[in-house]
Parts: sequence; C-alpha cells; structure tokens
Amino acid sequence: MIQPATIYLNGQFISKDKAFISPEDRGFYFADGVYEVIKYYKSHPFCFNEHISRLRNSLAGIQIHYTGVEKLDSIGKALIEANQLSEQYAAVYIQITRGVATRVHRFPDGEISPTVYIRAFPMPPLLQEMRRGIQVITRKDIRWQMCHIKSIALLPNTLLFEEAAARGAGECLLVRDGYFTEATHSNIIAVKKGILHTHPDSNFILPGITKQVVIRICKEVNIQVVEEPIPADEVKDYDEWFITGTGSEILPVVMIDEMTVGNGKPGPVTRLLQREFFKITYRALASEEMSTDDW
Amino acid sequence: MIQPATIYLNGQFISKDKAFISPEDRGFYFADGVYEVIKYYKSHPFCFNEHISRLRNSLAGIQIHYTGVEKLDSIGKALIEANQLSEQYAAVYIQITRGVATRVHRFPDGEISPTVYIRAFPMPPLLQEMRRGIQVITRKDIRWQMCHIKSIALLPNTLLFEEAAARGAGECLLVRDGYFTEATHSNIIAVKKGILHTHPDSNFILPGITKQVVIRICKEVNIQVVEEPIPADEVKDYDEWFITGTGSEILPVVMIDEMTVGNGKPGPVTRLLQREFFKITYRALASEEMSTDDW
Repeated sequence: MIQPATIYLNGQFISKDKAFISPEDRGFYFADGVYEVIKYYKSHPFCFNEHISRLRNSLAGIQIHYTGVEKLDSIGKALIEANQLSEQYAAVYIQITRGVATRVHRFPDGEISPTVYIRAFPMPPLLQEMRRGIQVITRKDIRWQMCHIKSIALLPNTLLFEEAAARGAGECLLVRDGYFTEATHSNIIAVKKGILHTHPDSNFILPGITKQVVIRICKEVNIQVVEEPIPADEVKDYDEWFITGTGSEILPVVMIDEMTVGNGKPGPVTRLLQREFFKITYRALASEEMSTDDW
Repeated sequence: MIQPATIYLNGQFISKDKAFISPEDRGFYFADGVYEVIKYYKSHPFCFNEHISRLRNSLAGIQIHYTGVEKLDSIGKALIEANQLSEQYAAVYIQITRGVATRVHRFPDGEISPTVYIRAFPMPPLLQEMRRGIQVITRKDIRWQMCHIKSIALLPNTLLFEEAAARGAGECLLVRDGYFTEATHSNIIAVKKGILHTHPDSNFILPGITKQVVIRICKEVNIQVVEEPIPADEVKDYDEWFITGTGSEILPVVMIDEMTVGNGKPGPVTRLLQREFFKITYRALASEEMSTDDW
C-alpha cells in the first residue's frame, strides 16, 4: 500500500490528502506569498542557509512577518524522513503566504497568521539533459520588476515555460530591453573566450543560489566572471551557454531558438563547472551513478 | 444567529466555513487563474455580459478551458439570494484557476478540472468618497506586461495599494515609461478643457468596464474622449482627475501626491458623469439615498 505523502501545514504534519487551505487565503486571492525550493542530496540540504537567507529577504520584501524560520530546518528533515526520501535526491518546497483574510487589496489589519505549507518530493538529477544539453527558446521578459523577490505570482513564468515546453524546449530565456535577464526558473550564464558572463543581481532577476556556487567555483579554478547583462543581439558571440538552478543544477544549452551553440554539444567550460559542482553536491557517491568520470 | 455565508465551489453551494481548496491548486502555487467582480444593484447585475466577455478573454489569454461560463448568471443570482443581498448593493466575485496538479511550471497533461470559486458580498456605494473625492499617490508601474488579462497574480497591486493606504490615500496611480497607465484596481481618467483623456486599451491596462460606460456616456452628452496615454509630467495641466471601477464607480481625485487638483473639490465634468452614471446604475432609487440631486 502506498502511504499518502506527509506534508506540513500551519504547524502540523498531516497526510497530503487531508491538507486544505481556505479559498480566502491571500496566496490564492492575490499571489501574496513567497517560496523556496531546497535540494536534499541523500538527506544533505544544499546551501540551506543561503535559501533561508533568501526566504527572509523575500518575506521582508513583501512585509510578511513570519517568526518560524528557525523551525524550517527540522521541518525539512522530518519531511524528508517521513516521505522515505533520506536515501534519494529530493527537495523540500516551502511556501509562506500572508494568511487568510477578507479580500481587500490592503494588508489585513492587526494580527494575521501566515499560511505555511511545506512538502518534500523526489528530485532526481536530470542526467540526460546534463549530458546532452537542452534546447531553449527566447521570449520577451514580461514579468514584473521585483524579480529578486521569490514570489508565488508565477503566472508569467508558467505561461512562458509552457510556450517553451510546447515547442520541445527545456527552458525559456527572457530578454528585457534588449538584454538577457534569466530564464523562467533558472539563471542564464554564457561563456566567451573562457570568461563567464551573467546578469548581475538586481530587481530583474532572482539572486540564484546555484549561480553563486558556480561563481564561487570559478574563483577557485581561476575562471573570470563578468556580471553584466548580455545583449540579446550578441547571442552568437558566445561559445557556451548554460542555465543554473536548484532543480536544473547546471544544464548546458546547446540550441537557442534556431541557433546551434558551438558544435551542439556541452562545451568544455560548462563541463568543467559541472564536474566541480558535482564534486560538491554528489560527493557522497563519486563512484556511483553520478561519477564525474562521465563528464 | 448569523448564518455562515454560502459560497459556490466546484459545482456546489456550500457554507463558507466548509469551503477548502487543495494547496496543490495552481491558483495557490502559481497564481494561475483569473477573476471578475460584478456589481449587483439590488439584484440587477451591472454590465453582466461585458464582465463575462472579459472573463472569457482572460481565460483564453492564459489557456484555461472552462466550459461552465453559461452557468455563471444563475450561480451569481443564487448567491445574491442565498446571502440575502437581493435588496442591497452587492457584488459577486468569480475566480477560476487551472485546477489541482502536481507542481510543475508546465500546464498539466490531459484533463484537468478548473477550480471555480464564487462568492457574494455587500458592496455599498462609497458615498463619502464619491462626494468629496479621494487623494492618491503615484508610483512606478512595476507590474507584468499582460495587464489586459484579469489574473490573480495581484501581488504588485496589493503592495502598491498598501503603500497608498498606509499614507492615507485611496488609490495608487501607476506610471510606466513616463505615462499614466491605470491604478491598482481602477482606471484613470483626466479632464482638460472639457475633454476626457484616458489610456487606450492595450496590454498595459485592464479594459475597464466602468471606463467604457463612461466613454459611452460621453458620446451621448457630446463630451470628446481622447484615448491616449497621459504623460506623468503633465499632471498639472489637467483640470479634473477621477478613477473608475466596479467598486469605485466614479471617484473624483482631488489630490495627487502633494498636488491639489483644481480647487480640491470634484470638478464639474466629473460630477456630470457621476450623475449620468448613477442614473443608469441607481435608477431604481433616484429619490432615495442615491438621489442625483446631491450631485
């Protein structure tokens, strides 16, 4: 018998089947909430503190006062265990909304308890995509101008990703005012003559945690990183492209719209960074399925 | 004893206290849904067909396939009655999301039932604001670029409105690239030398139904309407300002940031349009509380 998943909702661990929220939750009415996704590599949360720090920034950015951030570590661990994900690659999803209130745009007066919804689920590595790379499309970045807040107002992201997926692509690179910003749920990095280029952290992109790890690796292996927006009309001038994210990790981009990147295979800098990244993340299993020998 | 409100959720009329949705609803995860608010003047829905037409456009705009639009008329009437709002000024709120599915950005494969949530509530006229006018603030329009879709991804609207409310203002006028677009939940109209000016329908504003009624009234009373964006730096050049919306109806704006509009009282064109508007909407009670003699 399959056990229904255990989730966490407002202080309680309950069966997913019994988890319900009010339609008057401001998350449902107004997308008035934020979220994080943290990867657990066989029980080891990756960059947990960085995710929690970003969550705090997102909460502060929309003035949600949630006092339970300290508990998220133990809740995450408990969910990984309860869902028998301790020996797997998994993730914990955390969503916090302003809470339940009569529908008016203004924030509710007085005390309101944020809605806290957390769940764990398997997140296996995208082995094929990591090895072969993915194709992507490019579209206008139509999102709002506070993309540094990881809000649940993700309708534009889903519409743009759906457009990519419907075309057989694995992501949608976004272009605002002539420059690449990020993708619908990952950051964009390009390589030219051995130098990494990526959009600087600003209100137009989410400050990617995997991106920061890649930048840190670059410092260690002496690869220069230029944090400046990449002009969309110079897409052909770059030798390699890849995207980064908690779920994507490091995914080579081998085709952008109709353009083949390089020889259509993941490039040497991308592969080097994958190897270094996997040494950190999959270190426990270097000789197993994620052996870096493959790269 | 106060009866708990009756709401409609996915085919059923139920007590509000028993209404719950799944946290896996894409409305809660992604703001993947749309909505409408229709005003019922003592049981008479105002511009019902126009609201339904806009709802169809919103649904089509994000590719939600909902086949029950024909039923909304009878559901709305039933909710007005069940909640004893037949003799009041009230409103029906309709929210339709893509439905419940495992969280991935891509639209769910195969069949998925949209979540349909409808409720009725009192919406009394804002008598004081209508008579005296309101003050507003102006802010940068940071929203996405598909504002013609009435989506529930309203986080920017709530943040901007909260900023207005915290300053004692009644709305927040939005400025994109140097031009007024609309407010957080109403349209903006300005008057110069007897001519109305308002942003044309485009992807930057919601096509306001009350705004359209005002434009129709203008044709009838021979007031010229120019549908062109108003430059923010010409704010002082206009004699009157007002906002329109289902809840706002026609609300004079008498102060914009630190600037008093005209003599600080609702102007003659605004008041004329209010009178004509109320002749339509409150026609059943011309001699009662909404007597146009007051205007």
